[in-house]
Amino acid sequence: MVRRPDTPGVFHSTEPAWNDSNLRELAGHISSPLFFTHIRAAIGSAVQQTNCHPFRHDRWLFMHNGYLNEFATVKRDLVLAIDPSLYPEIRGQADTEVLFFLALTLGLENDPPAAVEQAIGLVEAVAARHGVPNPFQGTIATTDGETIWAFRYSSERNSRSLFYTTDVPTLRKLYPGRQLFQEVSENARLIVSEPLGDVAGVWNEVPESQCGIVGPDHAEMRPFQPKAPATPSR
Amino acid sequence: MVRRPDTPGVFHSTEPAWNDSNLRELAGHISSPLFFTHIRAAIGSAVQQTNCHPFRHDRWLFMHNGYLNEFATVKRDLVLAIDPSLYPEIRGQADTEVLFFLALTLGLENDPPAAVEQAIGLVEAVAARHGVPNPFQGTIATTDGETIWAFRYSSERNSRSLFYTTDVPTLRKLYPGRQLFQEVSENARLIVSEPLGDVAGVWNEVPESQCGIVGPDHAEMRPFQPKAPATPSR
Amino acid sequence: MVRRPDTPGVFHSTEPAWNDSNLRELAGHISSPLFFTHIRAAIGSAVQQTNCHPFRHDRWLFMHNGYLNEFATVKRDLVLAIDPSLYPEIRGQADTEVLFFLALTLGLENDPPAAVEQAIGLVEAVAARHGVPNPFQGTIATTDGETIWAFRYSSERNSRSLFYTTDVPTLRKLYPGRQLFQEVSENARLIVSEPLGDVAGVWNEVPESQCGIVGPDHAEMRPFQPKAPATPSR
Amino acid sequence: MVRRPDTPGVFHSTEPAWNDSNLRELAGHISSPLFFTHIRAAIGSAVQQTNCHPFRHDRWLFMHNGYLNEFATVKRDLVLAIDPSLYPEIRGQADTEVLFFLALTLGLENDPPAAVEQAIGLVEAVAARHGVPNPFQGTIATTDGETIWAFRYSSERNSRSLFYTTDVPTLRKLYPGRQLFQEVSENARLIVSEPLGDVAGVWNEVPESQCGIVGPDHAEMRPFQPKAPATPSR
Repeated sequence: MVRRPDTPGVFHSTEPAWNDSNLRELAGHISSPLFFTHIRAAIGSAVQQTNCHPFRHDRWLFMHNGYLNEFATVKRDLVLAIDPSLYPEIRGQADTEVLFFLALTLGLENDPPAAVEQAIGLVEAVAARHGVPNPFQGTIATTDGETIWAFRYSSERNSRSLFYTTDVPTLRKLYPGRQLFQEVSENARLIVSEPLGDVAGVWNEVPESQCGIVGPDHAEMRPFQPKAPATPSR
Repeated sequence: MVRRPDTPGVFHSTEPAWNDSNLRELAGHISSPLFFTHIRAAIGSAVQQTNCHPFRHDRWLFMHNGYLNEFATVKRDLVLAIDPSLYPEIRGQADTEVLFFLALTLGLENDPPAAVEQAIGLVEAVAARHGVPNPFQGTIATTDGETIWAFRYSSERNSRSLFYTTDVPTLRKLYPGRQLFQEVSENARLIVSEPLGDVAGVWNEVPESQCGIVGPDHAEMRPFQPKAPATPSR
Repeated sequence: MVRRPDTPGVFHSTEPAWNDSNLRELAGHISSPLFFTHIRAAIGSAVQQTNCHPFRHDRWLFMHNGYLNEFATVKRDLVLAIDPSLYPEIRGQADTEVLFFLALTLGLENDPPAAVEQAIGLVEAVAARHGVPNPFQGTIATTDGETIWAFRYSSERNSRSLFYTTDVPTLRKLYPGRQLFQEVSENARLIVSEPLGDVAGVWNEVPESQCGIVGPDHAEMRPFQPKAPATPSR
Repeated sequence: MVRRPDTPGVFHSTEPAWNDSNLRELAGHISSPLFFTHIRAAIGSAVQQTNCHPFRHDRWLFMHNGYLNEFATVKRDLVLAIDPSLYPEIRGQADTEVLFFLALTLGLENDPPAAVEQAIGLVEAVAARHGVPNPFQGTIATTDGETIWAFRYSSERNSRSLFYTTDVPTLRKLYPGRQLFQEVSENARLIVSEPLGDVAGVWNEVPESQCGIVGPDHAEMRPFQPKAPATPSR
């Protein structure tokens, strides 16, 4: 009898993805209804597994393509705002891990968009206090294993790109002869930083300052607007 | 639709097993009807993934707890005896990898006990030519994904230990109150270098110079006797 | 013209020391009038270079054989007591790194014994607040490149061992025929966790709760007594 | 008293050079009258220290920017041509390591240009036998610690680039105001795959099919022409 684990499995490696034979093995032997993949180009912090995305807490995964600007300047204030009960779980030194634990502190498990809005709002408030310009840049994805929340935002409103695929039924109608679109499941979705391939009608850009939500039978796009927490944790 | 891969997946790591968080993740999330595990204490050759057991060729896995004595002395002759079509598959520098490709050259896929007897016979013949004493030491396990062949042998007839578990129906009768024995499947088997735990009646030692065979509905023990190939490959 | 660097060089590796070929190369090609060596058996925190001892700040090195008990419980309070200007230098998650930055905060560069007494005193005070027993265990060594300060202490007064070598002139008189004692320089000293070899008269144990100081022309032993900082940093 | 080692020290790492903190430490603390540096982009063989250049034998270092075409096809014949006494020294699976041991077999230590001409000649002869086109590509550098031999060659006569610096006295006359050229020693030379910076008159290209030789008081350029060994080793 196979017991299903309660938390997602995570494989972290510091080898270049294209030369990592364990990654190739795992990708060829594991299937999952939902998975996150992240390739990190380290800026400043060490190349070590504890700095690799996605980060995990219970059923949640969190990853980020971007950065907190001048992280060394704002890090201490942000870490102090993390719930002390979560603090011991911080394992690395990545800006994204701190952001994840801030979002958890601010309610990620109950209302992900609101929690991420508050976490980035807090980042922007702390950065303002220290005179750090353009505090947040990037796209974020988080999941509880059922639904994916994907965010595109930057303090300067000039954010890294984020794309999602058209729903499969529409693609099947557009390209009745394409075998691939017949083979993938009807509710398959990819959310990516940059489009893969250039088939017309497949990729849709998430607009600036938006949050996309994709669940088992639900897909939605909402405006995203950071809000510093009413009482800044300190 | 999930496609089942044709070859076993392999995870190799050079981190100490007790500190390898990827290993812990994988062990917690993957189930398999048959798996091999190996911890290597390097003697001489480099600590790198390409020297890690088990080694793989198509559906076959092969691992070894032991060594070829004075491997540097006999290596060249042994490598020359490997089928040239298999030669490019050698990826590391481990003695066991060479032994595996010798066994494949000598028919492992058709008759594993005969092939391993010939491979070790060849090792002993080459070692004799070079004046190397006690050429082979250890236990070997190999599988095609359905059946496991496990060998205990050393040229000096003083081999590292090898143990296997009593069949589960017998264990259930012996220990009707043990929950573990109720939970494991009826045909579960462990074959290990050293017993785990000390419950009486669980562990049976494979005798010196024997080969154990365990298949889906078959288990057998046979004498093992190396035989140099009639016409030594050179 | 060779410029001499202002800070000590550090080599950190996560491979087992006995299999690390870079370590063997460096040890065979580099000479130094003063060096620190540390082998870490990780307890809890990740096996990664940023957790490897010795830790460095400017001209200072710091290493520790031991642990802060229940570090996850006391870590947050201790990290908050680190000077905010030093905080961004924390690179890993090791208890010893936090202790080092506490000692720097408390004046390590001016009065090492007093700073370490205060740092451990603070650890003991924070642990008491959280009900953590036996807060500190181990031996510590720190250097500014000229002098070495070595500490043996544990909150339970049952500390890991620490040994130092008899001065070379005395060893030469004791063993006039030993070539090794003729070859080493007159003021050579080893300070180690456990004695190497068993030549009588070579090794002397640092007593419980003592601090040994060895400088270019100075060697001294002092009592060591933790003192929580007057105004606990918070 | 510091003993000078008889062989060059080698540091090999599989981390990206720009993120390797050990490399940064070593580069900041070690000085040498002659050093080799190599960054490898793996093609096919594993990313592991034993595949990293430069390779070493006694006082000799050897590195290569390029490849043996279809190495898997020609590898076995080339390895068989290596002197059996050198064979056990092969530690990795890189084409360049095999080429190095072929050159050593063919007299590298006595006449480097002739040995490299024969080694590449043998590669071309073996490749011809197997129908492999364009067998060799790249630039090679080798040294005995005193003199550097640098080769630019490819079977198709369309070789990767190789540059060397103008002698320092000339550069000082050309740029009397440049501090850097005053500071470096009078006989400093860089030999590189691609020019660093774009100061006019600094960089000179090694022409196609040439070997450059730079010794303590000697610099020379010679034509390079592979020659298969008279009696092919087999």
